Amino acid sequence: MKVIDGGVTAPKGFLAASTAAGIKYKDRSDMAMIYSTVPCKAAGTFTTNVVKAAPVLYDKKIVTESKSVQAVVVNAGIANACTGAEGFGYCEDTAKKAAAELNIAEDAVLVASTGVIGMQLPIQKLESGIEVMAKELSDTREAAHQAACAIMTTDTISKEVAVTFEAGGKTVTVGGMCKGSGMIHPNMCTMLGFVMTDAAISKELLQEALSADVCDTYNMISVDGDTSTNDTVLLLANGMAENPEITEKNEDYRKFCEALNYVNTEIAKMMAGDGEGATALFEVKVIGAKSKEEAKILSKSVVCSSLTKAAIYGHDANWGRILCALGYSGVEFDPEKVDLVFESAAGSIQIIKNGIAVDYSEEEATRILSEPAVTAIANMNQGNAEATAWGCDLTYDYVKINADYRS
Amino acid sequence: MKVIDGGVTAPKGFLAASTAAGIKYKDRSDMAMIYSTVPCKAAGTFTTNVVKAAPVLYDKKIVTESKSVQAVVVNAGIANACTGAEGFGYCEDTAKKAAAELNIAEDAVLVASTGVIGMQLPIQKLESGIEVMAKELSDTREAAHQAACAIMTTDTISKEVAVTFEAGGKTVTVGGMCKGSGMIHPNMCTMLGFVMTDAAISKELLQEALSADVCDTYNMISVDGDTSTNDTVLLLANGMAENPEITEKNEDYRKFCEALNYVNTEIAKMMAGDGEGATALFEVKVIGAKSKEEAKILSKSVVCSSLTKAAIYGHDANWGRILCALGYSGVEFDPEKVDLVFESAAGSIQIIKNGIAVDYSEEEATRILSEPAVTAIANMNQGNAEATAWGCDLTYDYVKINADYRS
Repeated sequence: MKVIDGGVTAPKGFLAASTAAGIKYKDRSDMAMIYSTVPCKAAGTFTTNVVKAAPVLYDKKIVTESKSVQAVVVNAGIANACTGAEGFGYCEDTAKKAAAELNIAEDAVLVASTGVIGMQLPIQKLESGIEVMAKELSDTREAAHQAACAIMTTDTISKEVAVTFEAGGKTVTVGGMCKGSGMIHPNMCTMLGFVMTDAAISKELLQEALSADVCDTYNMISVDGDTSTNDTVLLLANGMAENPEITEKNEDYRKFCEALNYVNTEIAKMMAGDGEGATALFEVKVIGAKSKEEAKILSKSVVCSSLTKAAIYGHDANWGRILCALGYSGVEFDPEKVDLVFESAAGSIQIIKNGIAVDYSEEEATRILSEPAVTAIANMNQGNAEATAWGCDLTYDYVKINADYRS
Repeated sequence: MKVIDGGVTAPKGFLAASTAAGIKYKDRSDMAMIYSTVPCKAAGTFTTNVVKAAPVLYDKKIVTESKSVQAVVVNAGIANACTGAEGFGYCEDTAKKAAAELNIAEDAVLVASTGVIGMQLPIQKLESGIEVMAKELSDTREAAHQAACAIMTTDTISKEVAVTFEAGGKTVTVGGMCKGSGMIHPNMCTMLGFVMTDAAISKELLQEALSADVCDTYNMISVDGDTSTNDTVLLLANGMAENPEITEKNEDYRKFCEALNYVNTEIAKMMAGDGEGATALFEVKVIGAKSKEEAKILSKSVVCSSLTKAAIYGHDANWGRILCALGYSGVEFDPEKVDLVFESAAGSIQIIKNGIAVDYSEEEATRILSEPAVTAIANMNQGNAEATAWGCDLTYDYVKINADYRS
């Protein structure tokens, strides 16, 4: 597997475009379109929130029922959530307009929205945006980058990753982009991910690979513990790499999963590190757990702890809060067996041995915790399973971003 | 039932004392003692954290195995958590010293600690403090108030409540104090509650009443979602009211439970409103739920949502975040049936009807949300069960308090 510079246009046959449709922001692009020159198999995973945005309900149906998909239309600014039948109708209108402009079937179009909830989409603006984008689709690196920028809300950086691998003598590419940081005014964190590949792979295995991988990637990050109404990851495969179609769990499938995992992990980490107000990416590795499931619960418990996140902001080696968060995770363990190490680009330091603090240097610990990416490694010493979760620090700016009155 | 001005010395036969033992703070009291002139039945509830502080382990044993209890010794400054066998030994030493000074059995003494975890107690200072307090025990209102002050850490107000009720022609009193706000340096939130009563009641019913009541009171508050290693509620009953002993679930038991519930609810609300950095008490009532269990899960989900808490700090009627938090609670419901009302001393305003915003005034909503205590009432319109949870807003000061480096 090889990491390359690229985004959603890196795989063969994928084009992208973006435009400033004026949905809510001024002086910036706020719509993106991804298009494949040939029909794709589509897989998707969606929010588990009982309150589901209209595009989530719409895409679930398309991914399940459509034979193939060829385009995705995304807008930032308005989430089209809690908008009732009117909001669902706008998903249909968006798909219909894109289908007409691109000369494809209406059920070959997926839609996604992020932004304010409770507001209705200005559908004429979206339709005008679709007209513009359909004419400007391009397979360039720049087109992919502009699309990744157009879907940002409170994100401070655009998020793209691409990799290639070999399958049956052919080069297969997987490229993705996502957005996610928190909400824009007034609302909740929305995480959207779009991963494109030119791999030839059966629809069943495509969905299976995605469903399995999100559990180890997107589902292991947390900015604020608030699960959005709009969370969506879409994975489109158009087969243009011309590798022998992956229809069973062979070596090519394993390589595809590895590439998908890399792309998903990297963009998930970018989201965590770019969490609202964050100054640091906070990685928590739990090793020596009894099972992977327990390791995941333990690592997520630490990464979601407000007290631990505030300590990371303060560059404070506050091991008690980490031990506490492990303790209330719901997983049984012997506290007197736990070891804890902090790690970053500045070095590594052991803090706890057998549940009790060792004689470490607070200054050295603070130096290590002052990097933009820090890792806590907790060894439960009760098995061989491990898992990693990613989050960010809790800062004044998180409160500021989310307390400011809607204007 | 009648609310009276009082704390732990309000019930007959209970005395209190406090002192500045110099455990960690300067120029303030940091130890408290509660003593009953006659033996008490004791009940207790303790943290569910796998990592349990030494006094939690110690008290569990005493509450379960001792025939009677007569004193409680509490210190602030050091939590005696993650301190191994040495820390557990200090619980024994504390009890032994108090027993000698008070001339009671060693297993008639309960201990509690709150503060920094990972540090060992300066046992000589505690022993000196016990000597002083044993001589200064008093049944005055002021002694109870000073004891409530001595157990504070980052608390900004002391927390006491007392009520009386009639049983069998006798006046029974229930009086309590607690501490809880967040942590002191470097560590986690510790919630300690001490409720005294002169009721005559069997040990079994005393524990049953307490265990049932904490589920609706202390367990329904959240400041930051971090369950401490030290959480403890102790309930002592010395029978000096001379009411006919409550040995079955009769009308007197019902009245006792009502009084206990009032005391626990009020001090729990004080803790939530005095959460670290908080500027407002945030109450969430869920009504019209299918079951009480579901109503509790729904209300706690909202009260724990960082996004909602930040919005409350901003006086922002951000209904989308509340609907979102209800949605990810794990309870199934129809979002299109939900109604939402905000309420405070400044008035009441309906925000959502059938899952969609009504045409309300943002200015009026902000006015209502600018009070020091605000309530959100969510009607799920799917049953008759209800529950209330209490929390606070998320503020810059919460981050400041918890990010500041340990000094």
